[in-house]
This record gives sequence, structure tokens and C-alpha cells, in this order.
Amino acid sequence: MNLAERMSRLGTETAFAVSAEAAAAIAQGHRVYPFHLGDMNIRTPDNMIEAAYKAMKDGKTGYCSNYGIAELRQALAEDINRSHGTHYAMENVAIQPGGKPVIGKFFLALMNPGDEVLYPNPGYPIYESQIEFNGGKAVPYGYTEGKENFEMKMEEIEKAITPKTKFLVFNDLQNPMGAESSRAELEKVADLVRRHNLTVLCDEAYFDIRYEGKSQSLASLPGMEERCVILYTFSKKFAMTGWRLGAAIGPKPIIDAIAKLNVNIESCSNHYIQWAAIEGLTGDQSGPKKIIGILKERRDKAVEMLNNIDGIRCFSPNATFYLFPNVTGAMKRKGFDSYEDFRRAALKDTGVSFCSRLHFGRPQPGEQEAYIRFAYSGINVADIEEGIGKLKTWLEA
Amino acid sequence: MNLAERMSRLGTETAFAVSAEAAAAIAQGHRVYPFHLGDMNIRTPDNMIEAAYKAMKDGKTGYCSNYGIAELRQALAEDINRSHGTHYAMENVAIQPGGKPVIGKFFLALMNPGDEVLYPNPGYPIYESQIEFNGGKAVPYGYTEGKENFEMKMEEIEKAITPKTKFLVFNDLQNPMGAESSRAELEKVADLVRRHNLTVLCDEAYFDIRYEGKSQSLASLPGMEERCVILYTFSKKFAMTGWRLGAAIGPKPIIDAIAKLNVNIESCSNHYIQWAAIEGLTGDQSGPKKIIGILKERRDKAVEMLNNIDGIRCFSPNATFYLFPNVTGAMKRKGFDSYEDFRRAALKDTGVSFCSRLHFGRPQPGEQEAYIRFAYSGINVADIEEGIGKLKTWLEA
Repeated sequence: MNLAERMSRLGTETAFAVSAEAAAAIAQGHRVYPFHLGDMNIRTPDNMIEAAYKAMKDGKTGYCSNYGIAELRQALAEDINRSHGTHYAMENVAIQPGGKPVIGKFFLALMNPGDEVLYPNPGYPIYESQIEFNGGKAVPYGYTEGKENFEMKMEEIEKAITPKTKFLVFNDLQNPMGAESSRAELEKVADLVRRHNLTVLCDEAYFDIRYEGKSQSLASLPGMEERCVILYTFSKKFAMTGWRLGAAIGPKPIIDAIAKLNVNIESCSNHYIQWAAIEGLTGDQSGPKKIIGILKERRDKAVEMLNNIDGIRCFSPNATFYLFPNVTGAMKRKGFDSYEDFRRAALKDTGVSFCSRLHFGRPQPGEQEAYIRFAYSGINVADIEEGIGKLKTWLEA
Repeated sequence: MNLAERMSRLGTETAFAVSAEAAAAIAQGHRVYPFHLGDMNIRTPDNMIEAAYKAMKDGKTGYCSNYGIAELRQALAEDINRSHGTHYAMENVAIQPGGKPVIGKFFLALMNPGDEVLYPNPGYPIYESQIEFNGGKAVPYGYTEGKENFEMKMEEIEKAITPKTKFLVFNDLQNPMGAESSRAELEKVADLVRRHNLTVLCDEAYFDIRYEGKSQSLASLPGMEERCVILYTFSKKFAMTGWRLGAAIGPKPIIDAIAKLNVNIESCSNHYIQWAAIEGLTGDQSGPKKIIGILKERRDKAVEMLNNIDGIRCFSPNATFYLFPNVTGAMKRKGFDSYEDFRRAALKDTGVSFCSRLHFGRPQPGEQEAYIRFAYSGINVADIEEGIGKLKTWLEA
């Protein structure tokens, strides 16, 4: 029994291998500091748990529409319009079992074999996997260190465009880098999208994980609402990664196609969880505020301590729960030129577990600097302090 | 913005259009008897609701393995081995967000473009849709009325096989017909599978919805365990269609491929619901017993009343919650030769809403008899009595 040929083009999240190594170290009795996880060790707000329980008991346990329940589609359209200044109606919203399902359905609904897709690298590895799996050509674009955060290499993107380029994957407030576009950069992206007639998968998974200032969406720029499909997720804002609820938000013809895929792929998203999501969007907001408070304290501690290590420099992103420190100097001092050797030695000698640039796409020609990714969503402040303290001692020895 | 070419090959469940017409009739103030629904108006057992609530509060709200949690995979393997006489381990189980996701992932993992797939027609419409969408050729096989239930047209299946035939979709305890293979028929199917080296999508969604006797699985016949992927769902046995939980069970290399698709498509299935599912499989069994009791009473009433209508004959299947009455005589008497005219007139004149053979695949050449589908999962006994009573009066007028 052979697998289908297309399976040879399917990627995965290699970060899971890091999780497995960390779990093995724990099983052997070692202390591990889990900076590799994009998962959260924070409780889902109580009012959402209670709303889910009530909905279950009220019998919201049968199928619902493949688009999701009307009440949630309406509430989410209004929530997005408030934060984005957009003009979505419930017809522009298809509820999904998570944010990730939007990636695959976007390409299934819109991309033909041979179409070229610009995608971020370093970036979330499922973009490249789903593009190639569905017969597209994944064309990477990179980032460079700016003054306060990473910046998109706009000239590189422009140069990579061919007549076959149809789509841009844009993940502002980015995983793994914590990169955020300035208003000027957003306008350049919108200009490029208009000039080259692109359709955008606008991954906004971290839009509401923000500590200072206000998140901006590409979709709110002139002409962008009709060219963007927003990937929305309840996972991060409400610490409910394991509940699996998200949405695709965009032009109605695309949303209708995505909802037709829902009929075929999973019928509908869980029914009663959608009532919990309405409570999340419209009820008491102390839960998400508390989550942001917890994450901000972690960020501040981790950034401060990382920048205090010789040979490491690290931005302090205003959004996401990721740091992408430049460790070029530290690796050189310590005699490492392999990411994986460095990562494994750090885990073995200090218990600090992290992903590296390698887990977020193939390094591109000309990359000189070395980066690792620290996620602080799954580790408490005391452990951040202890873990990065041990890392400093090890690196500076 | 155009949709991808592949979207032209995507089917849907046309039964949803019937739901929409029924909803419109209700909105206009008409009384509707919902026999069109495959959904259930029965409560999920309380012990599972409480187990889900407890797991939420215990923080089972983060991601879990893309394969599902080990405890559930183990419990499900044991449950299946008990009822099937099979030898599955947890490595043979990949938890899914529903039973339906197994259909798409089976074809994605195994089928190459141009491969031919035998599938039941009348049958669940998503088989044909997913085969064609993913570039396969859907080759229908039919059923004929036997003495006590429908029988597969084995000679027709045999004749349809070509060197390109790679897969069989087998839905014993069948939707929409309630068909069930005898032991002799199962052995013929197993023989055919072996001789033609087929891999089988074994849709067992209704395996545990059974009123008399014992369900048998193709997977338990010699040589079949390594050739079958079982579609398992929690939806029906535990009245939890809207929770979305199921599993793929089969040979480890296929399960690994399916789980790799899970990483790409939805990360994982809801975490805390898996703890509720363990309670369902291993806890108090009075819930599923009560569900079967409710459904059996409905079946008995509906079968008795349908057979009491001039021009209708109806089997009494021991499993599923569907009836597939032959209405050839009744349609003729009433002057209908179009399924849709008949269905709409019945809805308008009696409020009885049902699907017809048309909603379960294109009629095949040579089909002489006319059938409609009555689902009794979403309608109480009193309404069954009232609705079919009105139908009888209308048909016999």
C-alpha cells in the first residue's frame, strides 16, 4: 500500500521534534525551561468555560451551519470592524475549527497548480507546506533587522514577482520574529498588492496579543478589504489553543467557497464552543486583559535578560508572544556553527529549550546572522528568570 | 478574483437545500415534520457533558498531539477490538474532528489522480465529491431490494473494476438506505478486495446505532485489517453530532500519513472533548442505551405507518436511523414522475419534509423504482405519528 504522490510534497512543523526532545529530557529527570512552545500555560477565561458548559446543557450539541452560527458571525464581523475600521457583514465570515484551517482552505479555494505565492521565511511553516502540497510554487521573502524591529525586504519581494505571482501570504505581527509593519511599510505592501493584482492571506493570529500601541491591519487600507482573506483565531486572545476555533473573513465569493469546503471537510465547527466565543467577544473583558498582563510581564523579563547576555541582541516586540534574538555572537564565542548542535547543547547543558531559525523555513542564500526563537506563552516569569540565567552562565563561561 | 479550477469538481450535500426549504416553511408559520435531518434531537449523555466541563476546568484547553491524546487512542483501540475482534493498538488510531474528516484525508493520503474508486450510489454524497475533487474517478455501485433489506449488486461491482481501480468505499449499515450486508455478502466483498488488491474506506458511522443483533465489520474478516481504514465517529452513538469528534483507525503507515495531514489542516482535535469521549467509551453506558431505546421506538412507529400507506413499502433495518421506502406506487397514483415535485408537494400539502434518492447521488441507468429517505433521528414519536398520518391521508386521497 503506497501513499499518494502528493504526500511527498507535504511539510510539517519540525518544531514538534523539539517538543519531543524536551519531553524526553523531562522523562529522564532533567529540568527543562520550555521556550520552544507556541502553546499557552494560561487558563481560558472562566466566563467562556461557563458559557460553553451552559450551551452544552442547553442542547447546542447538534450540527450547526457549515458557515458557523449567525450570532457569532455577526459578533465577529462587528468586533473586526471596530478594531480594523472595515465594513464586514456576517456574510463575510466563515467560522472554522481553528485559525490554521484557513490556510489550507484559502489555497484550495483560490490557487491553481503553478501559481506562485510569496510567503514569509522565516515564517510559520504551514504556509510553504500547504502551497507546495496543493501544487503551487512557494516563493520566500525575508526580513532584515531595522531600528526597533524586523523589516520586510520590500525590494526583494518586488524582484521575486513574475506574471505567475497571484498570492501574498502576509503575517504582520509575525511568528517567529515578532515583526510588525510600520504604517509606511503597510502602505508599501498595499501598493504592491494593488499593482500586481494579488490576493492576500492576511494571517492575523496575533492581532490582539499586543502590549503597547494599536495593531493595524492591511485589510483596513484602501482597496485591501476586497483583496484580503483574514485568518482570525480565538486561540491566543482567549488562551484557548486546544478548543480549536477561528474564522476566515473576506470577500463573500471566497467565503462561500471556503464554507463549501467546510461541508466537505468537517461539516461544521463545534456548535456550543461558538456560544462561548460570543461570550468572549461581547462579555466581560477581564479575561483577555489578564492574559495580556501575564504575557507582558514575561516579555519584559525575557527581553531584558536576553539583552544582558554577551553576544545576544533582541528586539522587544509590542505584539505576539515570540522573541527572535540574534545569537550570531554568542554562537561564535561558544564555537557553534550549526543551529541544531547549538540548540541541543543548550538543552543538555542548561535545560533551556528553544526553536531556531531552521524550524521556520529553509535558510535563504546570503543569510549571515543567526537567530533563535523564544516563545514565552508557555513559561512563567520565575522560570524565565531561572532558565535565561542558566543560559547566560553557560554562554558566557 | 476567480476561484481555483478544482472548485468546479467540488460537490456538496444537496440535502442542505431541503433543510433550507423546511426552515422557510416554518418561518412562514407552517407545521413541518422534519424527516430530512440526519441530525439528532437527543441530548448528549450528562456524564459526557460533565466530563468535558471538568476537563476544561482542569486546563485541558491547550494543544494536544495531532494524533489525539494517548488515553483516548488506547481506549478507542480497545473498544473497537472488543466489538470487532480486531487487533488494533493506539498506533492505529488518529483522532479527528468528526467522522467526515476521515473521508477527505483517506483520499489525500492514498489516492493519485486518475485512480478509480468504487463508491455506493445511493450513498453519502461526500464520497463522490471528495474523490472527484482530489482528481480520482468515482465509479458508482448500486443496491437492489432483497428479502429483508437492500443487497449490494456484487456482479455490477465486479464488472466495474479495471486495472485502475484502487479503492472501495464500503458503508455497511448504510446512509441513506439502512442497508446491511449479510455474512455471505461481507465475505464476497472481502474476496473482491483481496483479488483486486483494493484498499477500503470502511465507513462505520452507524456501527453502534443498532436495535437487534450484532454489527459486523469488514475489517474483522481475514486479511482485511491491513486493507481497511475505519471511519469511526462519536457523533451518533453519543448524540454529539455538533461536538465534532471521530477517528481514523487502520494500518500504521496510513494513520501516520493522516496524522501528518492533521498537522497541516487543523493542528489537532479539541483537547478536552477527548476526555469526554473517554468517559463515553469507558464510563456509565446508560446514556447510549437510552439513545438506542428512543431511536428504536421511532423506527418501529415509522416503519409500521409507512408500510400502512398504499403504494409504499419499507424495510425495517436493524441499524442506522434511516428508512428508504420504495414510493414508486405512491408517486404513480398521485401523478408524480419528478422526485423534486413530489417532495415539494408533500412539504407544502402535509408539512412532511424528506430527502429523496436524488440527494444521494445521480440516478444510474436502468433505475426503475423510486425511493425517498426518512431520517428519524430528529423527530419525536408523536410527530412521526402525526406527520406520517397526514402523508397517508394526502397520498391515499
